[in-house]
Amino acid sequence: MTFRLSTTDSDFAAAFTALVDARREADEDVSRDVAAILKRVRAEGDAALADYTSRFDRHDLNVSGWAVEPAECRKALESISTELRDALELAAARIAAYHEKQKPQDSDSVDAAGARLGARWSAVDAAGLYVPGGRAAYPSSLLMNVIPAKVAGVRRIAMVTPTPNGEINPLVLAAASIAGIEEIWRVGGAQAVAALAYGTDRIRPVDVITGPGNAWVAEAKRQLYGVVGIDMVAGPSEIVVVADAKNDPDWIAADLLSQSEHDPTSQSILFTDDAAFADAVAAAVDNRLPLLSTQAVATTSWNANGAIIVVRDLEEAMPLVNRLAAEHLELAVDDPDALFAQVRHAGSVFLGRMTPEAVGDYVAGPNHVLPTGRRARFSSGLSVLDFMKRTSFLSLDRRAIDAIGPAAVALAEAEGLPAHAASVALRLK
Amino acid sequence: MTFRLSTTDSDFAAAFTALVDARREADEDVSRDVAAILKRVRAEGDAALADYTSRFDRHDLNVSGWAVEPAECRKALESISTELRDALELAAARIAAYHEKQKPQDSDSVDAAGARLGARWSAVDAAGLYVPGGRAAYPSSLLMNVIPAKVAGVRRIAMVTPTPNGEINPLVLAAASIAGIEEIWRVGGAQAVAALAYGTDRIRPVDVITGPGNAWVAEAKRQLYGVVGIDMVAGPSEIVVVADAKNDPDWIAADLLSQSEHDPTSQSILFTDDAAFADAVAAAVDNRLPLLSTQAVATTSWNANGAIIVVRDLEEAMPLVNRLAAEHLELAVDDPDALFAQVRHAGSVFLGRMTPEAVGDYVAGPNHVLPTGRRARFSSGLSVLDFMKRTSFLSLDRRAIDAIGPAAVALAEAEGLPAHAASVALRLK
Repeated sequence: MTFRLSTTDSDFAAAFTALVDARREADEDVSRDVAAILKRVRAEGDAALADYTSRFDRHDLNVSGWAVEPAECRKALESISTELRDALELAAARIAAYHEKQKPQDSDSVDAAGARLGARWSAVDAAGLYVPGGRAAYPSSLLMNVIPAKVAGVRRIAMVTPTPNGEINPLVLAAASIAGIEEIWRVGGAQAVAALAYGTDRIRPVDVITGPGNAWVAEAKRQLYGVVGIDMVAGPSEIVVVADAKNDPDWIAADLLSQSEHDPTSQSILFTDDAAFADAVAAAVDNRLPLLSTQAVATTSWNANGAIIVVRDLEEAMPLVNRLAAEHLELAVDDPDALFAQVRHAGSVFLGRMTPEAVGDYVAGPNHVLPTGRRARFSSGLSVLDFMKRTSFLSLDRRAIDAIGPAAVALAEAEGLPAHAASVALRLK
Repeated sequence: MTFRLSTTDSDFAAAFTALVDARREADEDVSRDVAAILKRVRAEGDAALADYTSRFDRHDLNVSGWAVEPAECRKALESISTELRDALELAAARIAAYHEKQKPQDSDSVDAAGARLGARWSAVDAAGLYVPGGRAAYPSSLLMNVIPAKVAGVRRIAMVTPTPNGEINPLVLAAASIAGIEEIWRVGGAQAVAALAYGTDRIRPVDVITGPGNAWVAEAKRQLYGVVGIDMVAGPSEIVVVADAKNDPDWIAADLLSQSEHDPTSQSILFTDDAAFADAVAAAVDNRLPLLSTQAVATTSWNANGAIIVVRDLEEAMPLVNRLAAEHLELAVDDPDALFAQVRHAGSVFLGRMTPEAVGDYVAGPNHVLPTGRRARFSSGLSVLDFMKRTSFLSLDRRAIDAIGPAAVALAEAEGLPAHAASVALRLK
């Protein structure tokens, strides 16, 4: 049985605040371990990588090989079913098409004072992509991380992935082949992130590191933020569904469980304006759970972090939805745009009854790497912009510097910076 | 005397690599102190703020007052000279005009499969701005941080600034008045950053924190990254000037010194294709240094971190310039666009002989908060985007889900996520 609230409960405000503030992120104290790993990889390079891989992943890189060759990826692609190959290719094409539209425009213009002003975007030289091994090795995540980098125009993409006991998921290799990745290193954990940031004899350093990972990987990225660019620190997945009674309860139950099955810390929350529909969804969840191969995880997650909240009307739900600032938001109503207009904070929104969130995890096109843990208040999903940077530029002629230079001189002098003032004043007529 | 190199030196490659890799950033071990301050402010709120302010800034907030009122800022604005007021207003108007062009476009379109796809940008609800006190209290920095937030549409902007011994720079208050800041707290250091991130009884929490600060402030922002959004970790300022012999050596000397005077750790580097011009600039720097009220800082910085590099021709300089990925880059030549086309990494570029970098610090329009320490390889200057976030959205109808849904089902099953598969499959015809 999951958490059940109604906005008419006398203690609703406090109970909802507790739900918003609940921390589901692990507080594992890994920062000291990670700092030691980063330091050692920086000092010892490949030798440290080989040692950590032998200890944590239980294989010898010098025997199993350091890299996965493109030919191995092509072989994996040929080995999977036509259905899966077509599905990966459809996903790749749609993700590329969506991200193409994110490419930013340069600007270059001359203003009334005669100053030429603009900005030019360019791709980073090299991006590193972390792909988890084992159970959470998802080909869809690989596509979602690599394709924005490719669309941005990144010249070199280096992938790292742990291969526990030397094993690697053929679907991940197939996706790597479709995405055109040519550099794959069989290393994982904080040590792989360190190698990408600092470089080793074998692995040249990169400029940006993205991709999901466990607590050690996340902490390594956090500690290396500034040495390289990183994507947002990610936490457990979450979905908020706003649904009226006209939905099929079983569809909505499946949508809620599609988050619950990710991880015991995932969160699924339903807002509805109909108490009977709430009961029907709760019953549908209970009926569906035993059918899932992911039942254990989904049950733990739903019982611990799930919630059903009954509101007087769906308008009343929207300020609450904004406080949750969820990674995923489904608006399963006849006129989703009316509710969407009231959404201020959400990672990605799924409009209408025929748009289950899971379609966005795979083939819709928008990125599935999204802000979690209320971070949609200030951050965005992974995009082409994460692999680009902007250089502003300025050009003045005699007329322009005579027009705006004196103000710069006055401000520089007031700030006590005489060389600043002189560098402008010397050029004035 | 500063560092002098020529690309014809036999040891040039190693010497230049040493210059690129030289760390000028303080390695002060402040992280434990900062962690303790953050923890205490989170637990004790305003009481902790008052105690830290009494210890570090030597005044009692409950006596001197917690906030600076808008009326006090208006009074400061009235007290400054017309020349300075006009200069601040020109700067504010030009910064606003430049940043207006950064506002991103929303997208909303239907593709061939019938899927409606798009992205909607929105401002964060609240931004916190850190303004240093004391010597480095620059009204220009205040404008450069606040105006992008205003242009983005941020509803609430909360400024924090330490007021050592209760004193506050009237120019900063005047700039705050021009920028329309209505919430100013007289707190600084890591404790102020903690208050903005976690909130206290007096200070409501914000979503994004920007603005320069000392090592404690920078470390507090780094530790709170993820709780709030932050601007890039900033290091010492730097300039690279590429100049031919047709420049006035004294102009170029002033440009180099305009960075050297910022801080002992600042860096100024000249590339030129003419050894006699290099000598003339070095002599002009020596002549100009004693004229500066900032002589002590500028001399230390120039001697320790300055460099003059003679190249065979200016084309040869460009790959070296890209390796430095400098915050500021001046191209003081007749055809700066030809060289600019070869620039891959730089924070902001100043084109031609009449465009000293310092004009960009104040009134040109582009932001002067720029990536330092080679971070222009992967990051950009402060912009409207730092105060906004993007929500992607998707809407499918019967035809669209029937077209792309089966591929999602296949991939979900292959990834072992049956509830994902069911949420799509249930909706297929």
